[in-house]
Amino acid sequence: MTSKITRQAYASEDSLLRIFTAPEDSTSTLSIIEQKLSQDLAGFLGNSIAALEKPLSEIETDFNAYQIPTDPKFVSDYADEIMQNLVAHSVHTAAPSFIGHMTSALPYFVLPLSKIMVGLNQNLVKIETSKAFTPLERQVLGMMHHLVYQQSNDFYDQWMHSANHSLGAFCSGGTVANITALWIARNRLLQPSGEFKGITREGMTKALRFYGYDDLAILVSDRGHYSLGKTADLLGIGRDNIISIPTDEHHKVDVAAMRATAAKLAQQNIKVMAIVGVAGTTETGNVDPLTELAALACELNCHFHVDAAWGGASLLSNKYRHLLKGIELADSVTIDAHKQMYVPMGAGMVLFKDPELAKAIVHHAEYILRVGSKDLGSQTLEGSRPGMAMLVHACLQIIGRDGYEILINNSLEKARYFATIIEQHKDFELVTAPELCLLTYRYVPSSVQAILTTAISNQDTELVATINELLDGLTQFIQKHQREQGKSFVSRTRIKPAKYLRQQTTVFRVVLANPLTSHQILHDVLTEQVEIAVLDREYLPQLLAL
Amino acid sequence: MTSKITRQAYASEDSLLRIFTAPEDSTSTLSIIEQKLSQDLAGFLGNSIAALEKPLSEIETDFNAYQIPTDPKFVSDYADEIMQNLVAHSVHTAAPSFIGHMTSALPYFVLPLSKIMVGLNQNLVKIETSKAFTPLERQVLGMMHHLVYQQSNDFYDQWMHSANHSLGAFCSGGTVANITALWIARNRLLQPSGEFKGITREGMTKALRFYGYDDLAILVSDRGHYSLGKTADLLGIGRDNIISIPTDEHHKVDVAAMRATAAKLAQQNIKVMAIVGVAGTTETGNVDPLTELAALACELNCHFHVDAAWGGASLLSNKYRHLLKGIELADSVTIDAHKQMYVPMGAGMVLFKDPELAKAIVHHAEYILRVGSKDLGSQTLEGSRPGMAMLVHACLQIIGRDGYEILINNSLEKARYFATIIEQHKDFELVTAPELCLLTYRYVPSSVQAILTTAISNQDTELVATINELLDGLTQFIQKHQREQGKSFVSRTRIKPAKYLRQQTTVFRVVLANPLTSHQILHDVLTEQVEIAVLDREYLPQLLAL
Repeated sequence: MTSKITRQAYASEDSLLRIFTAPEDSTSTLSIIEQKLSQDLAGFLGNSIAALEKPLSEIETDFNAYQIPTDPKFVSDYADEIMQNLVAHSVHTAAPSFIGHMTSALPYFVLPLSKIMVGLNQNLVKIETSKAFTPLERQVLGMMHHLVYQQSNDFYDQWMHSANHSLGAFCSGGTVANITALWIARNRLLQPSGEFKGITREGMTKALRFYGYDDLAILVSDRGHYSLGKTADLLGIGRDNIISIPTDEHHKVDVAAMRATAAKLAQQNIKVMAIVGVAGTTETGNVDPLTELAALACELNCHFHVDAAWGGASLLSNKYRHLLKGIELADSVTIDAHKQMYVPMGAGMVLFKDPELAKAIVHHAEYILRVGSKDLGSQTLEGSRPGMAMLVHACLQIIGRDGYEILINNSLEKARYFATIIEQHKDFELVTAPELCLLTYRYVPSSVQAILTTAISNQDTELVATINELLDGLTQFIQKHQREQGKSFVSRTRIKPAKYLRQQTTVFRVVLANPLTSHQILHDVLTEQVEIAVLDREYLPQLLAL
Repeated sequence: MTSKITRQAYASEDSLLRIFTAPEDSTSTLSIIEQKLSQDLAGFLGNSIAALEKPLSEIETDFNAYQIPTDPKFVSDYADEIMQNLVAHSVHTAAPSFIGHMTSALPYFVLPLSKIMVGLNQNLVKIETSKAFTPLERQVLGMMHHLVYQQSNDFYDQWMHSANHSLGAFCSGGTVANITALWIARNRLLQPSGEFKGITREGMTKALRFYGYDDLAILVSDRGHYSLGKTADLLGIGRDNIISIPTDEHHKVDVAAMRATAAKLAQQNIKVMAIVGVAGTTETGNVDPLTELAALACELNCHFHVDAAWGGASLLSNKYRHLLKGIELADSVTIDAHKQMYVPMGAGMVLFKDPELAKAIVHHAEYILRVGSKDLGSQTLEGSRPGMAMLVHACLQIIGRDGYEILINNSLEKARYFATIIEQHKDFELVTAPELCLLTYRYVPSSVQAILTTAISNQDTELVATINELLDGLTQFIQKHQREQGKSFVSRTRIKPAKYLRQQTTVFRVVLANPLTSHQILHDVLTEQVEIAVLDREYLPQLLAL
């Protein structure tokens, strides 16, 4: 009865206002859940997330209502519901054995700090709704800029807080960062000149006509991230004008091939608008020869962007920073703090070598972003944005260079360790060795390895194809079952490794960013995969019968 | 000494790992801050944010370091620091007297829920890192779709969870939502046909050539949001091809003028790609005649998008829903949950009438977003994204339709109340009356009002300009001082009201979304403005001497 009365009362104004004024009682369901999470995040996630995977179709039945409910619901009832329907069937991305994607464990302090961030509810688009968050975000961009470009004291004094300049743009993620960089590249290439008001004002067709180009192109390795295709689509360049350049046996772009392609494009009057170097490919984790790419961009007089969304964090290691050599020559660099920098989801950044760069996309309005204001929104793709920069700021300060040095080095060295035990195991093949902390491999029974090696050295493409097809099926089988068992997770992808005659090959993909992933876990992942492999009744028997 | 030892120890691996494994002690500085915030958010914000405004240039001195610090920092030291440097100088956007922007107070329950969201750290781009969050997000989009389009049970059964369809896209904000809608509109207009592979693949220039258009245009009222200009730039259409259509005396777009413009464009072989209707203009809060715009879009055979980023929440009121009549005819609609739906920053949405619409921007990759998967990322502009949809879900369930009915109605009625007291006050002029819960006004001493009225009726544009210029200065003076005093905040913008002979006029802008804003506060805002006005030594004396 009490419940009923409260429910009725709830729909009155006064009781409704209580959700804005009266905090959750410390003995309430939601408060108790929050306390558990605060006291032991790993325990909370481990206990709350169901170990066994529930099929998506079943989960969907809990999310079938399409009408916004009429009656308000008690916070405690809602909390109970989502613990059962949502949290239990979310993904334990922080688990040390979840080594398939770039999402890692988070440091504890980001939880209370996130809550402060949400409570403050600043909107970074303009100073009037963000005040000190504006210089904080500029400082974070300045620190990341310095990490990449290492300019002088004077440089940062002059530009970090300058109203009409930007050392970078904070974004929701790497995709928006890449779009921003190439948007700038396009607008600078097709800038105003004489009568022509620039692509910004007049659009692509008039811009190409004015500059006398038949088309634009962007050159990137065939391992470039899919966001680049999206960017070309969005910017009116067209996906076909993202020219895929082949990679060498180490999955690094073939610069000679890129140069030759550029020459061919020039003959067709197609202007190369930008070269994109990848510093940590999504699928194999390799870094393009950035110094050579910078030189080529110079030759072609085009923008040089580096997509280091994932790999950029490796710059925080003095020991391994050299792996990204040449990144400081890029006109713009994408880095996601929510990947290897241990910041929660939603913290992408693009950095600009030249603080004038963002002028190519500057915009104003009457009520905010007035000319000369320091409102961050005048030079970003997004409008209203939360104060996520605060969490990056916190990680940079609390972990510090010394802390990141340890974290990054450990990740890279753990990947090397995993590569070693894969190579030592008779039934596994390392497909791509870790350059940073990402590697790919597959399960290949040793008897099959022998046949495959012979087939490859005989250039018997047909037999290699037959074996690869069966192995692809087996890899998929193992990956799916391992995920469903819920103990550990590796992802899978398809690549064309030189060592398998460039045939399409399905592989396990592992990212070793979580500081809590132990050597034992890596051994266990392999053991589990062997155990799952023998359960396969479709591909394994055929492979063993070869 | 202890501190020194711990600091050294900290740089070791084991102690570093503690930030990932050991929660903040409940007696730690950060825990205490968090407790204060949890127990009394308004009190926390009121006590922690400095009342008096510190100049930005001074705040910047705390954010001048550009090198990532070498040494790790204690969490407690960091917490102390940001309370002083950041929180103290942030903006109290939740204050009931902060009525200048669209950021409001938040319900308490979003704080612990945000923490759960961050702790789970899901990535919504793909099911492998979000699982149940995927159907949850689809349900939120379904509920918002139903709010706008009110389709049948069968419709939602069929499409809400369909792998290759989308009822909308969740975005970081309204800008990305608007971009997504117009990107789709562009790609559908210039879709593949015969030999032509579509603008997606071939880019803008070839697309226009294939379809035989000289250019594209987007029609929108001169009160359209600045994100539309950004969109036109980004999409390669060009800002000059966003054709600004004049508004009537109620700041609604003049549909006859739009039709005439479309006819002229057709003669120039410029294809109208989309009409954008505004449902709640950013500066005056008015709603375009959506039904008429839909009819015109039909005549022109073009996409009809409604930007209801701010106003869309009014659909949650059965009493006032009629103010947005015609929105259900739009092909796509933008709504921001972080505006009037009381969700924290970062929750934009675009809804699609036709679940096939998003196919125009679909994309795949090898490691995720595979064809046929339900990964949300295959149809969004952004890639990796946090699980913000959870907070919208929570608000929809916990507040419910009945709760929103009260909140929205109160906001609209409070705006009408404020308009009344402005009109009754001898020294204020209401410039634009509230259609939803946004209004503009200015301080005009009664003696000046009389002179101005006469000048207007005499069509004495020169005198009106002289008076307006002085009033603009005075309005700016009052707005800045009021903000700096820190008791209350109204924003300001510049519009060209018909009643002032369409002259550029600076006005106070007020948004009444905060449920805690009382009538008394509104009276106090005016009283404070009168008190500030008399302090002005530049404009007021000249005005009174007229």
